[in-house]
Parts: sequence; structure tokens; C-alpha cells
Amino acid sequence: MVKKLRGLIRSEGIIVSNQILKVDSFLNHQIDPLLMYEIGEAFAAIYKKEGITKILTIESSGIAPAIMTGLILKVPVVFARKQAPSTLSTDFYQCEIFSYTKKKTVPLIVASSFLRSDDKVLIVDDFLANGEAARGMVDLIRQAGAKLTGIGIVIEKSFQSGGKTLRARGIRVDSLIRIDSLSDGVVQFADDE
Amino acid sequence: MVKKLRGLIRSEGIIVSNQILKVDSFLNHQIDPLLMYEIGEAFAAIYKKEGITKILTIESSGIAPAIMTGLILKVPVVFARKQAPSTLSTDFYQCEIFSYTKKKTVPLIVASSFLRSDDKVLIVDDFLANGEAARGMVDLIRQAGAKLTGIGIVIEKSFQSGGKTLRARGIRVDSLIRIDSLSDGVVQFADDE
Repeated sequence: MVKKLRGLIRSEGIIVSNQILKVDSFLNHQIDPLLMYEIGEAFAAIYKKEGITKILTIESSGIAPAIMTGLILKVPVVFARKQAPSTLSTDFYQCEIFSYTKKKTVPLIVASSFLRSDDKVLIVDDFLANGEAARGMVDLIRQAGAKLTGIGIVIEKSFQSGGKTLRARGIRVDSLIRIDSLSDGVVQFADDE
Repeated sequence: MVKKLRGLIRSEGIIVSNQILKVDSFLNHQIDPLLMYEIGEAFAAIYKKEGITKILTIESSGIAPAIMTGLILKVPVVFARKQAPSTLSTDFYQCEIFSYTKKKTVPLIVASSFLRSDDKVLIVDDFLANGEAARGMVDLIRQAGAKLTGIGIVIEKSFQSGGKTLRARGIRVDSLIRIDSLSDGVVQFADDE
């Protein structure tokens, strides 16, 4: 699956800049369901003995890999919202994160009934770059008094600071793909020779 | 699965008003992955002989049922975006829909490379109420010159106009659950005795 993902990144990924890789054809806009299932299997294999009770992700691109992980681990998936819908309950955890794509601060919200102090939570997300989304989700889990077991990431841009900062805080981060550089229009994977 | 869904709507659904049913515990915020898989099986059973090549949904709550349907039918899933991310290609189909939850008009966007004139498209969404999201997706499919095969809906509020309007246009709509009324704090299903 990692080999397949790498192949897709090489053949279909579009390097927008030294910072931005666009993988809209299989992960962020069009989604390959079977690939998502295989990603779910990979995260489930890593965390199957950890007694995970809940998966937390963030709308929208995190939902597909998270739901497949939840299907295999047989646990509910909660997606944090970036804005409060009119029907959201009044009782929720909230923090603020900076959205680099929107270039502004956005709220991150989870209804308090879906993150409980006895939950063991696995965070799943599509990308890890500056780590703002992950930092926000970690904060929501802390507010709930739940236990964060680890973070499963499909593609980590390891030349940006998110992964390093999270690991420095003692948080377990498992990235299926790590990209060291997008310079000169070339995807350099972490363990390329 | 319909029986299970009805049971969950009765036991966990919150009737916010005569118009609004909140099912945040298994569909719209916290998601039950196995239930989503069963919903995917139901849509796949209905459309398996139609030669579907693509599933179209809308972020965020449509993604989970859509991805499971795509997993079973073995076709890609595209989710229409409600705003253009900075990394979206410049070549896209766009329309405007009125969001009743946001109380304003929002854009609906799909990159043109992911909806092609030879696609046979199944729309999947969580709710059908006033039908704005569905109308928008139908418009995007028309812009692409693709064929719309049908629309699979998890919960249709049949006392609102969306389903009626779509069917009057000759569009096939298959709703797993149809709710005739939310009046007096009671969920009245379409074929309740």
C-alpha cells in the first residue's frame, strides 16, 4: 500500500510549490475508496492492540481514511468541525487553529458528548504539515480529559515543523508516507537513496 | 439496516424543530462506520447493474456513506467542495446553492478533470430536505456533460420540497429512510401505520 501510495504521488501528485503537494485525484477531492481501505488497514494494524475506543479526524479530507480505520477497528469516528453548524449542541469543546489554505484562524469544534474522559483516541488525518490541525485535535482531546494514543497520518511533509513539534511533546505520530522535500519539482521521500 | 437506522433515529435523533432532525451521534458528527458500510451495501445493491463509474457527494457529511458505496461498487468518489481551496486547479465546474444551515448562498465546486462526459454518476448524500445540495450536484453533472443515473439519500425529509422537485424533473431518487413529519416532537416515518 505504501508502494502504491508512492506511485500515485509520483504519477498523479502535482507539486504546486516547494511547500504544497496536490493529491486531488485520489485523496483530497476525488477519493480512491480501495486505497482508503488499505490505509485503514495499515493504521488498524499499527494500533490494534492499543484498545482504541474512538477515532478523531477533521473535515473534510480526513474523513475517508478515518472512517476506514474505524470500520476495521470497529470504533466510532468523530470529525471535528471547522465551523459550528446551526444544529450543533451548545455543549462542545473548541479551540482555534490557523488554516494555511484559508490564511486565517478558524475554530475547531467537537460536541462534548462524543469525546469522553474514558476514551482512548486515535487521531487520523490525510496530511501533516505545520501541524495546526493535529495540535487543535490534541487540544480538544485534552479538554475532554481523554487519552490520546497516537496520530496516524497518510502523508507527512517532514520538511515542515508539525511532526517534529508533536514528537517533541512525546506524542506518537505514525506517518505512512514522509516527504523530505518538494524542491525543484521533485518529490523526495524520506528514505530515498 | 433500514430497521437499524430507524431505531437509531428514534433513540438518538434530536428533533430540534418541526424542520430539523439532528443525528449527530451516528451520521453527521460522530459516524458509525459499520452502519455506513451497510448503507453503502444498500445503495450498491440498488445501482449495481447501472454501470456507475463515479460517485458524487458533497463535503462533509456525505463523504462517509459515499465512500462506502464507492468501496463496494469499486468506483472513485468525488466530493464537491463548498469553497475553493487554494490548491484547487483553475479548471472547474461551479454553481451556487443556498445553505439553510449557513443562511447564505455558497459555491459548489468540482474540478473538471474528475467529472467527465463519459461518466455515469450516482449522487450519494446524507440528507435530502430542500434539495439545494442535490440540485447543485445535478447542475455540476450537467455542466460536465456526464450522465446522472440516480440519487441515493440516507434520510429524506419528504415534507420538504427537495425530493418532490427532483422526481418531478424525472430524476431517480432512492431514499433509505423517508420522514413525513417531525411535528409535535415525533418522528413520523413515511410508511408508518
